[in-house]
Amino acid sequence: MSGSTFGKIFTVTTWGESHGAGLGAVIDGCPAGLVLTAEDINRALQRRRPGQSALTTPRREADRAVILSGLFDDRTTGTPISVAVYNENQRSKDYGHLKNCYRPAHADFTFDKKYGHRDYRGGGRSSGRETIGRVIGGAVAAKLLSCFGIQTDAYTAATGHITIPPDEVDLSLRDTNALYMPHPLAAEAEAAVLAAAKAGDSMGGIVRCRTLNIPTGLGEPVFRKLDALLGQALFSIGGVKAVEIGIGTGASTCRGSDCNDAFVLRDNRIRTATNHAGGVLGGIADGEPLEVSVHFKPTPSISQPQRTVRTDGTPMELSVTGRHDPVIFPRAVVVVESMVNLVLADLLLEQATARLDNLKKIFPV
Amino acid sequence: MSGSTFGKIFTVTTWGESHGAGLGAVIDGCPAGLVLTAEDINRALQRRRPGQSALTTPRREADRAVILSGLFDDRTTGTPISVAVYNENQRSKDYGHLKNCYRPAHADFTFDKKYGHRDYRGGGRSSGRETIGRVIGGAVAAKLLSCFGIQTDAYTAATGHITIPPDEVDLSLRDTNALYMPHPLAAEAEAAVLAAAKAGDSMGGIVRCRTLNIPTGLGEPVFRKLDALLGQALFSIGGVKAVEIGIGTGASTCRGSDCNDAFVLRDNRIRTATNHAGGVLGGIADGEPLEVSVHFKPTPSISQPQRTVRTDGTPMELSVTGRHDPVIFPRAVVVVESMVNLVLADLLLEQATARLDNLKKIFPV
Amino acid sequence: MSGSTFGKIFTVTTWGESHGAGLGAVIDGCPAGLVLTAEDINRALQRRRPGQSALTTPRREADRAVILSGLFDDRTTGTPISVAVYNENQRSKDYGHLKNCYRPAHADFTFDKKYGHRDYRGGGRSSGRETIGRVIGGAVAAKLLSCFGIQTDAYTAATGHITIPPDEVDLSLRDTNALYMPHPLAAEAEAAVLAAAKAGDSMGGIVRCRTLNIPTGLGEPVFRKLDALLGQALFSIGGVKAVEIGIGTGASTCRGSDCNDAFVLRDNRIRTATNHAGGVLGGIADGEPLEVSVHFKPTPSISQPQRTVRTDGTPMELSVTGRHDPVIFPRAVVVVESMVNLVLADLLLEQATARLDNLKKIFPV
Amino acid sequence: MSGSTFGKIFTVTTWGESHGAGLGAVIDGCPAGLVLTAEDINRALQRRRPGQSALTTPRREADRAVILSGLFDDRTTGTPISVAVYNENQRSKDYGHLKNCYRPAHADFTFDKKYGHRDYRGGGRSSGRETIGRVIGGAVAAKLLSCFGIQTDAYTAATGHITIPPDEVDLSLRDTNALYMPHPLAAEAEAAVLAAAKAGDSMGGIVRCRTLNIPTGLGEPVFRKLDALLGQALFSIGGVKAVEIGIGTGASTCRGSDCNDAFVLRDNRIRTATNHAGGVLGGIADGEPLEVSVHFKPTPSISQPQRTVRTDGTPMELSVTGRHDPVIFPRAVVVVESMVNLVLADLLLEQATARLDNLKKIFPV
Repeated sequence: MSGSTFGKIFTVTTWGESHGAGLGAVIDGCPAGLVLTAEDINRALQRRRPGQSALTTPRREADRAVILSGLFDDRTTGTPISVAVYNENQRSKDYGHLKNCYRPAHADFTFDKKYGHRDYRGGGRSSGRETIGRVIGGAVAAKLLSCFGIQTDAYTAATGHITIPPDEVDLSLRDTNALYMPHPLAAEAEAAVLAAAKAGDSMGGIVRCRTLNIPTGLGEPVFRKLDALLGQALFSIGGVKAVEIGIGTGASTCRGSDCNDAFVLRDNRIRTATNHAGGVLGGIADGEPLEVSVHFKPTPSISQPQRTVRTDGTPMELSVTGRHDPVIFPRAVVVVESMVNLVLADLLLEQATARLDNLKKIFPV
Repeated sequence: MSGSTFGKIFTVTTWGESHGAGLGAVIDGCPAGLVLTAEDINRALQRRRPGQSALTTPRREADRAVILSGLFDDRTTGTPISVAVYNENQRSKDYGHLKNCYRPAHADFTFDKKYGHRDYRGGGRSSGRETIGRVIGGAVAAKLLSCFGIQTDAYTAATGHITIPPDEVDLSLRDTNALYMPHPLAAEAEAAVLAAAKAGDSMGGIVRCRTLNIPTGLGEPVFRKLDALLGQALFSIGGVKAVEIGIGTGASTCRGSDCNDAFVLRDNRIRTATNHAGGVLGGIADGEPLEVSVHFKPTPSISQPQRTVRTDGTPMELSVTGRHDPVIFPRAVVVVESMVNLVLADLLLEQATARLDNLKKIFPV
Repeated sequence: MSGSTFGKIFTVTTWGESHGAGLGAVIDGCPAGLVLTAEDINRALQRRRPGQSALTTPRREADRAVILSGLFDDRTTGTPISVAVYNENQRSKDYGHLKNCYRPAHADFTFDKKYGHRDYRGGGRSSGRETIGRVIGGAVAAKLLSCFGIQTDAYTAATGHITIPPDEVDLSLRDTNALYMPHPLAAEAEAAVLAAAKAGDSMGGIVRCRTLNIPTGLGEPVFRKLDALLGQALFSIGGVKAVEIGIGTGASTCRGSDCNDAFVLRDNRIRTATNHAGGVLGGIADGEPLEVSVHFKPTPSISQPQRTVRTDGTPMELSVTGRHDPVIFPRAVVVVESMVNLVLADLLLEQATARLDNLKKIFPV
Repeated sequence: MSGSTFGKIFTVTTWGESHGAGLGAVIDGCPAGLVLTAEDINRALQRRRPGQSALTTPRREADRAVILSGLFDDRTTGTPISVAVYNENQRSKDYGHLKNCYRPAHADFTFDKKYGHRDYRGGGRSSGRETIGRVIGGAVAAKLLSCFGIQTDAYTAATGHITIPPDEVDLSLRDTNALYMPHPLAAEAEAAVLAAAKAGDSMGGIVRCRTLNIPTGLGEPVFRKLDALLGQALFSIGGVKAVEIGIGTGASTCRGSDCNDAFVLRDNRIRTATNHAGGVLGGIADGEPLEVSVHFKPTPSISQPQRTVRTDGTPMELSVTGRHDPVIFPRAVVVVESMVNLVLADLLLEQATARLDNLKKIFPV
C-alpha cells in the first residue's frame, strides 16, 4: 500500500499540494448502491474551511468537490469514486522567501532531506490543505456508515488549558463558534486564542470523538485492531502528538479493580457498566461508544521571531508572517471524524468476511 | 494485508495461541546477507519471559526460538525467515471454567461476537503470548537496524504513580529489576506492585522508548508517516490505551513559541535545539532521537471478585485466580522495542526507493 | 490493495468511465527527482487514440493529460502524481437502447450481477477507455525506467492468421500503419480487417513485447515473480485470453535438451546462448531480453445480428451498431507496453531493498 | 504485500526451502467456523508427492502436515492457521558440487545475482518443494469453497505432443496413472516419458483446470480481475511458460461472430450458449465453468551433458544426475488446483463486500 493510500477494502488515495492545480481523492472499494452526491462531500468540506472569524485564515477558499467518476444516477457503482477540489486563490509569491530556509516545527527540513527536491510553496504536500483528500474520503465513509446507524461526532474538548467538563458537552453548541467547542466556555477560549495571536503566538488543543452504534466485532487481531488502525489514522494527521482511547493516559495510574468494565445485561443485551475501554476490547469493538482523544500541537507558524537555519545551515531569525490560523485543531475536528469513519468503513467491510455463517447469507448454496 | 501481517517491505506475519502447539512468525522482505542466529532472537524472547520474581507468573516457559527457514551459513538469503516457539507447560484444564463466561476487560466477549467460535483456553489468540511473534520479528528488525547504527531502548518510565524523573533515567539499571525500571525507585515500585497483588488487584504503567541514529528521511507521507505507523504498531499491543510522541499530551496546553524546536547548526549538521517533536517532523524522521511513551492499563485478570455475565447474559461474580502477573507493562518493554524496530526497518527499506539519485547508486547505467 | 490499484512501491490507481467527467490515474511511490512533463504522457496517450484510418473509431478524442499534482519545476517531488484526461464528445444518447439488454462477450451481464447497479453508457468502467489510466501510469514508469536504460517496445505480431516471421520484425515500420504491425505484411492485414468489418465482423490478433536492459535480479519469489506480475498485469487488460513468456506454449511440446538455455560467457558477462526462457529464470530477470506475447480476442461489438437476452432473460437479437473498431489489439499495443513498464518499475524499486550491501550504499554508517 | 504472501483477504504466506528444517504456510483471513482437519491438507499433499512409479523421484517424502494454530475443536477460529511440513530424507551432500556452477534453466544464476547469497542445496527456495506451502493454502481454500458448492479439478491434458481430445476427458481415470492423465492415452504418454528419461532428457506438458459453480460476480475490476489474479497465480508456479483462459490462443485467429458467446435462457437463468470466454467476462465470473490451461516446460534437470558456466564465468559441461522427475507437470496438477482455489477464495470474500444490499443481510440496522 502506498503512503497516500489508506484502507484495505474501503480505500482512499489522496493527492495534491497547496499550490498545485488542486487536491483530491480516489475512493475505491465502496459498495455499490450507496446514494451519494457532491453535497454530502461539500457539507464536510465546509467544516474544514477557514471561517469568517478572526481565528481562522482570511483566505477565501471555495473548496467545492467535483465528482469525476464512480456514480450513476446518484448511486455508487462499485467503481472508483474520483473527487477533485481545484485550487483557487493561492498566491505563490507569498512563499518565495521560504525557499532557502527551514521553518521551525514544519516539514521543510525533513521533506528536503527525504526527497532532495521540495515544493516550498505553502508547505506543498505537508500543508494543511492535504486534509481535503481525507475529508472527501471520510464523507463517503460516513455516508456508508449512516446506512447502518453508525454516527461519529468530534468536537474541541480543550483549547489550551480551557477544558470542557466531560459531562457538560452539548453538541448542539458545537457549530456555533469558530473553535467547534460545544460549551459556553467557547467564548473564553476564543478570547484566549485571540490574545495568543495578538502576541504573535499560537495554541494547542484537544479534539475528542465519539462514535455510536458500532456493530460488535469490528477490528482484526492483531495488527489491524480497531485501536491500532485508529492509532495510524489519527497520528497521520498533521500536528497530532498524542492519542488516547477510552481512559487513555489514565490507564497507567489506575488499578485493575477500577479500570475493568463490568459486564452487565442491559436493554436485553450484554453491555458494560462503565466504558473505560472506550469501546474496544482486545482490539475489537464491544458495542459501547468508541471514545478517542487527540492532542494537537500549536500552529507552528508564528509571527514571533524564531531561531532557525538556512538550507545551507547558516543561522537566521525568522518571523512567519501572512495568513495563519493561531490554532490547528478547530479545522481538524472534521478531519478526526473523517479518519475515524475511514477506519470504521474499512473494518465493517472486512467483518463481512469473518464468519462462515454470514457468508452463507450472501452466497446461498 | 491480513490482520496478522505488519509491514509493507519488511513484513512479519505472526501466528499462534497460548494453548495450541506453539506460536511464531514469518519474516519476509528481510534483505539478504544479514548475519542472524537463533541466539539473536532468544536474547529478546528472554526479556518477555516471566521471571523468577514474585511479580511475574510462576510458569516456566522456555520459549526457545527455532529457525525453520531463510538462513544459509548463518546469513539471511532474502527468502522468508520462519521461526517457531513451541508451547510447553500449558495446562488447558485451568481454563475450562471460563468457557461459559466473559472475563471483564478481556477479549472473550468480543472474540465470541466477532467470530462466533472462540478458543477460550488462556485467551487463545488474545493472550499475551501472542507477542512472541512480535518479539521474533522485532529481533530480526533490530539486527538489521544495528547494521546502520540504529539503536532502540525501551524501559518502564512509571509504575502507577511512581514516575522516574526524565533526567534520571539510568539504562544500566534497567535489567536489574523485574519491572525493567532504570532507576532506584524500582524498589519502591516493586513494593507497590506486590501490595496491589496481595490485595487481589493490578496496576498500570508507562513504557518509554528512545531510538538513536535514525537516518533523516524515514517516514512516508501521508498515511505511512513515521508517527502514524508507530501509532498503529503501539496501539496494536494488548493493553495500550494511550501513545505519546515527543511532547505528547503536553502539546495541547503549550504555546507555539514554547513548542517549536529551533533549528541550529551543531556538530556540523542541522539539528534542533530542543526535541519536543520527539524526532518526527511532518511524519518524517528529522534525525533527532525518536521518543515515544506508551500507557498500559492494569492486568485485567484480578483475584478480587468482579461482576460479569455468563455467555447467555445471566449475571455472575468472578474471581480470576491462577497465575497472572499483576502488571502487564514490564514484559511489554521488549514488545514496544520490537514494534518500533519493525516500523523503522520497514521505513528504512522504503526510503531506499524514494530518490532517483539513490537508486542510481544501486543500478548503475 | 484495491482493485483499481496496481503495484506495491511504484503504484498506480486508476479511475474513470467512458461517459463520466473523465478518466485518470494517481501514481504514488515514484522516486523524487525524475524529470517529467505532460508531453511524456501525451506521447503515450496519442498511441492509444483512435486514428484517422478506417480501422479505428471515428470519434475524435483529444485525450490530453492534465497533471494536477506531484511535480515542481518539472521534476517529481516524491508525492502523488495525479493526472486527469477529461472526457469530451461522449454521446450518452447512443447507448440508451443498451440499458435493458446484455451485449454478448461484453461485461454488461457480469457488472449487473456483481454490483446490482450498472452504468450502461458505453461500457462504463469496462470500456476500453479505462486503459487511459494504465497508459498514464505506464508513461511515468517508462520515464523512470529510461533513466536506467530499460526500454520496452510492443507491436502487433499477428492479425488473425497473418503473422510476422519473428526474424523479420522491423520496428521502424511499426508506427507507419494503423495496426502497429512492423512489417510489410501490414497492408495485407489491413485489407483483411477491412473485409471483416465490411462483413459486420471483427478480428483477433497478437501483441508481442520486448524489453531490453533489465537489470539481473528483478522479480520477487514466489508470488511476485516477474512472470507472475506480468501475468496479472497483462490478463488485466480487456480482451486478453492468453499470455506467453519466452517459448510460451511451445514449452509443453519440447524436450529439456532443446528448451534449456545454455549459459555462456559473452561480452565479458554471463549470458544465455538462446532465450527460450524469455528473460526470466525462477521468476527473476536473468538479464536477457524479456519476451512476452499477448493474445487478444476480436472486438465483441459487431454489427452482425447476434442472439442475446434482455436483462429480464427474454431472448432478443442484437446488432451492435455505432462506432466500434473491428480490432482491439492495435490500440492495446501501448497498453501492453504500459503494463510491462508498471511491473518493471515496481520490481526495480523493490530490488533496491533486497540486499544489505546495496542498502549500505544509500545509508552510510 | 510481500513476495511470499498471496491474497488480499484470504491470504497465504509460504516459507521454506528444500533443505532446511521444513516448509509451510500461514493462512490468514479464513472465515471462522469452517470444519478443517490435517487430513484435508494431507489428501492434497499426497497428490504432489513423488509416487512409486518410474516417472517420479525415488525419494520417500512423507510430507505430513502439522497444524500449529488457528483451529479449536476442529473448526477454524478466524485466527491464522499455521501449518508445517518438516523435511526428512534430504541429503545435502548430493548438492555440494553445484555450489560453484549454474545449472541451465534453473534459478541458480538469478538467485545469486539477486541476493548475492544463495542456498545452493537442492534449489533452496526455488525448489519444487516450495509448492508445499501453496498446496497447504489451496487445501484450506478448497474446503472453504466446498461449502458453497465450488469444485475445482485439474488434470494433465497433454504430455508433449500426446493430447487428450477435449471431449474425451474422463476424470475418473485421472488418479489411475502417474501422469494424472484422465484418458487411456496415459499409457502411451507414460511410455514416451520413460523413453525421454532413458535418453537423459525431459518433457513438457499441459495442465487443464475446470471449476464449477462459481457464483456470478467474482473478480474485481480492473487489476484484480478474476483472469488477472489467475494470471499471477499460475505464472507464479515454477516452469509455467503460458496460460490460456477459455479459447486462449485461439482468440487471436477467430472472428467476433465465432468467438462471442451468445446469451440464452437455460435452466431458468441467464447462461451462455458456448463458453469461449472460459467463465470470465470483463474480468468477472459469469457463472459458466472456469476453464484454464497451463503450459509447463520440461524438467530442466537432465542427465544429458549441457554447456554451462561456473560462477566465475568459466565454461564447463554439466550432467545433472540424481533423482529428478523427467516431467514437472504431473505433480503440478494439484498445485494448479491450489492456486485457482486461492484466487477464488479471496475473490469470494471480497465479493461479500461489493454491494450495500448484501451488507445489510449481515449487519441489520
